[in-house]
Amino acid sequence: MIQVNENYGEVAGSYLFSEIAKRTAAFQESHPDVKVMKLGIGNTTEPLCPTIIAGLHKGVEKLSKVETYSGYGAEQGDPRLRKAIAGVYQERGVNLDSGEIFVSDGAKCDSANIQSIFGLENIVAVQDPAYPVYVDTNLLSGREVTYLPCLAENDFFPQVPNGRRADLIYLCFPNNPTGAVATKEQLKEFVDFAREEGSIILYDTAYSAFISDDDIPRSIYEVGGAKECAIEIGSFSKSAGFTGVRLGWTVVPFDLKGGQFPLEGGQVNGMWNRRQTTFFNGASNIVQEGGLAALTPEGRTECQETIDYYMQNARIIREGLVEKGLNVHGGVHAPYLWAEIPSGLTSWGFFDKVLEEAHVVGAPGSGFGNNGEGYFRFSSFGHRENIIEAVESIKANLKL
Amino acid sequence: MIQVNENYGEVAGSYLFSEIAKRTAAFQESHPDVKVMKLGIGNTTEPLCPTIIAGLHKGVEKLSKVETYSGYGAEQGDPRLRKAIAGVYQERGVNLDSGEIFVSDGAKCDSANIQSIFGLENIVAVQDPAYPVYVDTNLLSGREVTYLPCLAENDFFPQVPNGRRADLIYLCFPNNPTGAVATKEQLKEFVDFAREEGSIILYDTAYSAFISDDDIPRSIYEVGGAKECAIEIGSFSKSAGFTGVRLGWTVVPFDLKGGQFPLEGGQVNGMWNRRQTTFFNGASNIVQEGGLAALTPEGRTECQETIDYYMQNARIIREGLVEKGLNVHGGVHAPYLWAEIPSGLTSWGFFDKVLEEAHVVGAPGSGFGNNGEGYFRFSSFGHRENIIEAVESIKANLKL
Repeated sequence: MIQVNENYGEVAGSYLFSEIAKRTAAFQESHPDVKVMKLGIGNTTEPLCPTIIAGLHKGVEKLSKVETYSGYGAEQGDPRLRKAIAGVYQERGVNLDSGEIFVSDGAKCDSANIQSIFGLENIVAVQDPAYPVYVDTNLLSGREVTYLPCLAENDFFPQVPNGRRADLIYLCFPNNPTGAVATKEQLKEFVDFAREEGSIILYDTAYSAFISDDDIPRSIYEVGGAKECAIEIGSFSKSAGFTGVRLGWTVVPFDLKGGQFPLEGGQVNGMWNRRQTTFFNGASNIVQEGGLAALTPEGRTECQETIDYYMQNARIIREGLVEKGLNVHGGVHAPYLWAEIPSGLTSWGFFDKVLEEAHVVGAPGSGFGNNGEGYFRFSSFGHRENIIEAVESIKANLKL
Repeated sequence: MIQVNENYGEVAGSYLFSEIAKRTAAFQESHPDVKVMKLGIGNTTEPLCPTIIAGLHKGVEKLSKVETYSGYGAEQGDPRLRKAIAGVYQERGVNLDSGEIFVSDGAKCDSANIQSIFGLENIVAVQDPAYPVYVDTNLLSGREVTYLPCLAENDFFPQVPNGRRADLIYLCFPNNPTGAVATKEQLKEFVDFAREEGSIILYDTAYSAFISDDDIPRSIYEVGGAKECAIEIGSFSKSAGFTGVRLGWTVVPFDLKGGQFPLEGGQVNGMWNRRQTTFFNGASNIVQEGGLAALTPEGRTECQETIDYYMQNARIIREGLVEKGLNVHGGVHAPYLWAEIPSGLTSWGFFDKVLEEAHVVGAPGSGFGNNGEGYFRFSSFGHRENIIEAVESIKANLKL
């Protein structure tokens, strides 16, 4: 008789953003005439840039002709795209072989699936608050998760878990949801810990394109020794507007082994290769043509304009919230603003209050972990006029 | 200290098709002047039809304008596409709600991931030979796999595992690799077994478009009671040439529960929904526009022409092999031909022989399971002139 995976009983019935969507829809249904303004989910809103559109059309066109049609490609990605991604790392002084880069249909999938190549007995350490996928995928697989608090008191950078087991450590900078960034010195603390303890760091760089300070690392591999102990996940979603197009990548260095690891050089790379070739069939060849276009000089210049646009939104939100008297973090090198909730409201209480009074949807901090309680995330992805309208509505209608 | 998933030691170091590609490349390297003809991997070769190309271009164009740009869509798929897929089932008398259909980036991913919502203690039954993904994903997750032999003696339809535990049963018809099809009566034996034993059937219909006999079921739901005990996986890869475009779907009926199941109605549907919303971010919105186009009347007529083309290839291969004196199965309602290997050669031995003597790449039967030993798969995906050339070369150069 069939048995279900009982770990599904260990997680909340619905994924955070599904819950936000559900509550928003319910409010909209009972207030059909109200215009709801969404600063909740981190969903891009601006059109793809012309160079990418041309690349995608080219990708489609190639499939229309017998001479250029392609079926299954390499599960690891188009070699041209793997090389182009390596080229971007090269600019920051990070040398990667194409064979260390695995193209995928998005960073969410990779950050969800990466745990599967490690044993169930590992203890997983996750920033708290964090992107819910890190926690949920490990709980659903049956692993124990330990939390690394990120609060205003520690500037939202977690303490190294000295004296505690932390075999797999998820770090995300620029951080979702707090908007915090990490310096090289801060990351080095974790790299040193991982090499010493034989841990692996899963470093999520989905928001690296929003960093405007050249001294802040875009990649953990800018820190010496990181190739021995870190897997890095990257995304086209926010940098190129590919949230609905679907493209990302994961770097598994050949050198991943160092410290006291029981692993051989190349072993983890080989395991991820086996995982991807068995469970996955490659990113869409059309989408990969779009990714190639995004990494051309023209593509990158155009994408930067869209990023600047979102960051201008972030400034507008930040100024509005500060003017309203709220303490706000993030939003400088990240598209997210992390506001402290005043008075005794819970995050979901504040969610309902902001929705009902200002008609604005945000993301309740507690949805990202216990240490997110008392905070509220605003996303700067949106059309300028809507952002301004939402901020004005908060300023005029939210009763603090 | 990090521990790897030790189940990776339980499977062959490389995925079957990676191994075929490796051996082919090695042969090509040592014989640079030889033209190698590929009838190995089931990879589509003919361009996408005009209606689909137009749909894909439209999908790209929508992303270029602020009014029509879309970011994250529903992880479960575009509601229009879910409805269109339900419409195709409707034509065969199968009523499905859109909420029972989950769009994905391909049937390989779904057939690989579906096991994760079930417990590790389940015993998995797999046709032998079978598509390697069913076996490998379960072994990598740590489940016990039992095999249901499919041989010429039983017309490549497995016996119901009476008296043996089989909690999760993978069935694929039209079958890869044998090319066999199943009648309603045959499928009913498994549906009855599953309802009686409380098992779940994972029914893979990736090749259903190749069925030309109206009496052969395209879906397991054409068999009464199947909604209580079967999950079905479908694909655009072979029906619309989407091998590189990436689009598929999985049906998890609300009624899945029946027999002696310990499950509530809707429970498995809800678990798959939780899985998909947590581990996956939806199929590309561009690709889904292509899928919608493929399901229009024009799209379907055009796709049928390509299917007819491949099936004509299958006839040419079949006739050539029969003329050569080989016993050949399949290739009538499926794009695969399953040839019996004469004399005492192993499947890989025959692979090398066919490659060296006729310069043709096939797929060794043993790569699909122990009961595939002694067989060899030929794929009819290819350009007509190459198919004819390969068959002529086999006829002229293969020494039997």
